[in-house]
Amino acid sequence: MILAVTLNAAVDVTYHLDQVHRHGSNRVHEVAQRAGGKGINVARVLTALGHDTVITGLAGGASGEAVRTDLAASGLRDELMAIEGQTRRTIAVVEDQDGDTTMYLEPGPAITLAEWSRFLARYEELLSDAAAVVLSGSLPLGLPQNAYGLLVALATSRRVPAILDADGDALRAGLSAGPALVKPNAHELATATATVDPLAGAQALRAAGAHAVVASLGPGGLLATTPEGSWQARPPGKARGNPTGAGDSVVAALAAGLVEATSWPERLTHAVALSAATVLAPLAGSFDPADYHRLLPLVRVESLNPTSPQGESCPS
Amino acid sequence: MILAVTLNAAVDVTYHLDQVHRHGSNRVHEVAQRAGGKGINVARVLTALGHDTVITGLAGGASGEAVRTDLAASGLRDELMAIEGQTRRTIAVVEDQDGDTTMYLEPGPAITLAEWSRFLARYEELLSDAAAVVLSGSLPLGLPQNAYGLLVALATSRRVPAILDADGDALRAGLSAGPALVKPNAHELATATATVDPLAGAQALRAAGAHAVVASLGPGGLLATTPEGSWQARPPGKARGNPTGAGDSVVAALAAGLVEATSWPERLTHAVALSAATVLAPLAGSFDPADYHRLLPLVRVESLNPTSPQGESCPS
Repeated sequence: MILAVTLNAAVDVTYHLDQVHRHGSNRVHEVAQRAGGKGINVARVLTALGHDTVITGLAGGASGEAVRTDLAASGLRDELMAIEGQTRRTIAVVEDQDGDTTMYLEPGPAITLAEWSRFLARYEELLSDAAAVVLSGSLPLGLPQNAYGLLVALATSRRVPAILDADGDALRAGLSAGPALVKPNAHELATATATVDPLAGAQALRAAGAHAVVASLGPGGLLATTPEGSWQARPPGKARGNPTGAGDSVVAALAAGLVEATSWPERLTHAVALSAATVLAPLAGSFDPADYHRLLPLVRVESLNPTSPQGESCPS
Repeated sequence: MILAVTLNAAVDVTYHLDQVHRHGSNRVHEVAQRAGGKGINVARVLTALGHDTVITGLAGGASGEAVRTDLAASGLRDELMAIEGQTRRTIAVVEDQDGDTTMYLEPGPAITLAEWSRFLARYEELLSDAAAVVLSGSLPLGLPQNAYGLLVALATSRRVPAILDADGDALRAGLSAGPALVKPNAHELATATATVDPLAGAQALRAAGAHAVVASLGPGGLLATTPEGSWQARPPGKARGNPTGAGDSVVAALAAGLVEATSWPERLTHAVALSAATVLAPLAGSFDPADYHRLLPLVRVESLNPTSPQGESCPS
């Protein structure tokens, strides 16, 4: 199975109303709610792709219960560990009149050292059955800054490849432990490496310890720098829709390709098509398999390897 | 004991942030959360006054669990009945920069006929120990419009006086069953009776079946029309502060006075002082007992009875 870790799980709440009356009282027409946090989104996509996936991480309070209820209702395998603190909520207030959205993000719980120790024991148990582990998203308060470094090290010491999708200090602290793959977006890459050239940035992350780097460049597709070579994979055109969750779909496709040991061009093709299908779907983080399969043959993968013929184009 | 009924319980969430970036992403600095709904607020005040109080009503889902967790933490007696639907949340977004607040109100759960039947059985059981029952707030979806009429009738048939604090159709439907007391505010009174004269409105509600009517007139204090006479009770001055929960404090004081069988002028004095103390307290729905006791001798109660000396003033 693939183990998806979400240390800072969330309840993603969406409020629909016509228009917000600021400093007034607003009756919400429709409330949607589901379990969120990047690792949970990745697990949702992997499960939809038919991969046996287990979710672990930390969840607490009534909002933690709401996460677990939703995972059960979605048929996702839940090995979240209970904590004392309240799992954070995110509230998206959508004004249906113009489609604009205002987000409110709760700070999330503070994790105790005892809880973190218990989680590490649970994580090590779950690793024994894992073909790969995905580590996604922000760290809740109270965790050591090198939390991802420790989780990557525990995985690699058991020969379980670790995919890390994190930002800032959490990303940097995870690199030296040698993750199989990191997936920054353009902004995260530029912030982590102090260069705006994505290829140079990706190479810098490899030099810092990551075995492979796949940077998501929005409409520019994916840039991969790996021990087997470098590639850029481009979608057929700019997809119009909701980009929320597109990065998690990239991670899910790359995790699937890793456990299936497909070639990099094939992995990147699937990741670009799945990401574009996610943007097209109205519900954030979901995708229509028909869109995914329709887009697959339209992705263009270009080798950036200095030794290969320049500008080689290899559609999947 | 006093039974406090909240059919549409709520989780009242307060978000503090500096300033809302509309159509942007807002990190919340501080999250406060507690059980809400008018009957629960009344029970909180009654418990603080030392009255044995039991909370019943309907609560469901993770937000229902959050209500129950908070009641337990506050030492309140919880006899809420579980429902399938999700208890509603209210979100107050407070911009600390200017103190302005924007409210979001979820629609709340829909109650099934089977749940309503089960609740009526539970309610009848609880009535057997009740010296008075307080029925407060809005009705959730799915309940019959005469829900309060039925709850009042079940109480009065057992000689348990019922206090009704509701609005619109829910209030009107409760009158004919003969509640011991209804407590509209000026707006609710005007809407229910189509007159802007509070005394005429209160008399109309008595004619429709209420034994006594206490109308809360904001800074104008309370206007009472009862079988024993009519009175107006005025606070010492306009209290500056947060009026949220002031009406629930009035209901709590009137319920306490009812079970203690104090005179109307005394009940009204306590209700006005407690309400003013609630406005002064920074946290909505709470009060400082020192303010309450300081304000008691400052309340002026005027008899409006045609037979008593005109303009009689009876400080408590």
